[in-house]
Amino acid sequence: MNTQSKQDVLIVGSMAFDDLTLPSGVFPDVVGGSATYCAMAASLFAPARLVAVVGSDFPSRVLEELRARGIDTRGIEHADGKTFRWAGRYADNLASRETLKTELNVFADFRPKLPPEYRDSTFILLGNIQPELQLEVLEQVRAPQFVAADTMNFWIDSERPALERVLKRINALVINDEELRQLSGEHNIRRGAERVLGLGPERLIVKRGEYGAMLFDAEGIFFVPAFPLEDEQDPTGAGDTFAGALMGRLAELGRVDALTTRQALLSASTVASFCVEGVGTTRLGSLKLGEVKQRLGELRGLLHLE
Amino acid sequence: MNTQSKQDVLIVGSMAFDDLTLPSGVFPDVVGGSATYCAMAASLFAPARLVAVVGSDFPSRVLEELRARGIDTRGIEHADGKTFRWAGRYADNLASRETLKTELNVFADFRPKLPPEYRDSTFILLGNIQPELQLEVLEQVRAPQFVAADTMNFWIDSERPALERVLKRINALVINDEELRQLSGEHNIRRGAERVLGLGPERLIVKRGEYGAMLFDAEGIFFVPAFPLEDEQDPTGAGDTFAGALMGRLAELGRVDALTTRQALLSASTVASFCVEGVGTTRLGSLKLGEVKQRLGELRGLLHLE
Repeated sequence: MNTQSKQDVLIVGSMAFDDLTLPSGVFPDVVGGSATYCAMAASLFAPARLVAVVGSDFPSRVLEELRARGIDTRGIEHADGKTFRWAGRYADNLASRETLKTELNVFADFRPKLPPEYRDSTFILLGNIQPELQLEVLEQVRAPQFVAADTMNFWIDSERPALERVLKRINALVINDEELRQLSGEHNIRRGAERVLGLGPERLIVKRGEYGAMLFDAEGIFFVPAFPLEDEQDPTGAGDTFAGALMGRLAELGRVDALTTRQALLSASTVASFCVEGVGTTRLGSLKLGEVKQRLGELRGLLHLE
Repeated sequence: MNTQSKQDVLIVGSMAFDDLTLPSGVFPDVVGGSATYCAMAASLFAPARLVAVVGSDFPSRVLEELRARGIDTRGIEHADGKTFRWAGRYADNLASRETLKTELNVFADFRPKLPPEYRDSTFILLGNIQPELQLEVLEQVRAPQFVAADTMNFWIDSERPALERVLKRINALVINDEELRQLSGEHNIRRGAERVLGLGPERLIVKRGEYGAMLFDAEGIFFVPAFPLEDEQDPTGAGDTFAGALMGRLAELGRVDALTTRQALLSASTVASFCVEGVGTTRLGSLKLGEVKQRLGELRGLLHLE
């Protein structure tokens, strides 16, 4: 599984407009979606290739901005109709949110089609879409080297057999603690992790929001702190940012061994913390690698024992 | 603040009977109380001195067991009447609990009186009791070297001025994240920590249950993982165990510098994890230092990055 040069990251997922009701105000038409956050984060470290669908209302300016970051947008399908739209309202403390509206629009008929140039991709991030579609992406890639996937409660409930086929074909699953409980049927995180690793993936990464994340693999358990922010603005997309930055950093290093994964997880946590500091992708959009490196140093200091 | 030999830890707090309704069953008359847990944990590392009150119904067998662990029980007052009793019911996932009953009994009139032999104590752990009584303990100690205190929502609400006097006289405050939010008036943990450090203590330790703990001090922030257990039985007393083990380990080392505190916090987290593995103090009672050392090694492995 080891290579030595920087790889591209192929990302499939949603692109969306989000209508966000945050403690700081109401923000309509915020560009979002799992693929958008994943790609913006990954592109800090490695070239990213996007597979997604947008409607005719999606601004070309945004696609230009993505391309300016080294993101390959040739895999973005332009469909007639409206772009996927999600509306949500966050609690005052940002710790919980409720979905006010989900309009699938052009996303309802999405079938990922990889441009020929994408088929040599080796680092693959399957964002949170229908498991059958995640499998279709894998069918179109010639020789995947490291595949990570996200999923959600809806697919765990309604598409379990397909999801289990996905789990057998991926190297890493990146989900949150509630999803782990639902997928494993175990409240206890450690027992749940053992069950999920038994379903196929070599590594399980459990996101725990403001509490950080945990990695479970054959090497043991690793504890990823969340960077303690002074000013949280918007957690939307932080989990996707985390997964995208993780894959970007691994692709940049061209290594996926256990220790490299631990180190890349600290980078992922760092980039995700910046995501929360702005509404939508605003903070990610202006983020410089130097800022990431400085905060990564601070994050490592949180674990300093010598 | 540095010394070089093992010190005693003076502990003041409650001794109680707990009636516990746990997912695994109903357990009446479980010996508990903050001072009991603190002392059992501290005594793994250093001699402990207890200041508390029990009623005439408290079994002398328990006091003998405490003495057998090197705990000085001369400061335990034997009052006429019943011992403090708390009854609580835990949710199925152990993540929350409700208080069913609180009977203060002899604890209602408790005024801590230190035996003369205790007045030279240098490491002091003020368990969760009325702030005025915490101050009375400090008045009776000749030259405290390192003082840690716990408190709770009730005192934060109703005894704020006395609590603020306590904060000015302690080195470390050990509270949970909800108490931090209440005490600071800030939801954000980092801003809340800055406010609390501004009220007096040099170090703030924020307990976050299954998510571990965080240390805030002039040196920065430190992230303490919780040991991921496979089988949680009873979280009662885990926070007191954490504080007791922390103070015991600091007293054993005779040092309270920032790095020593970080290392001692990992020992504290380790011992607290054992507490949760048994009902009441059962697991703490049988715990051997060798077991603590082994799990401490595993816990440090959760932070391993090299």
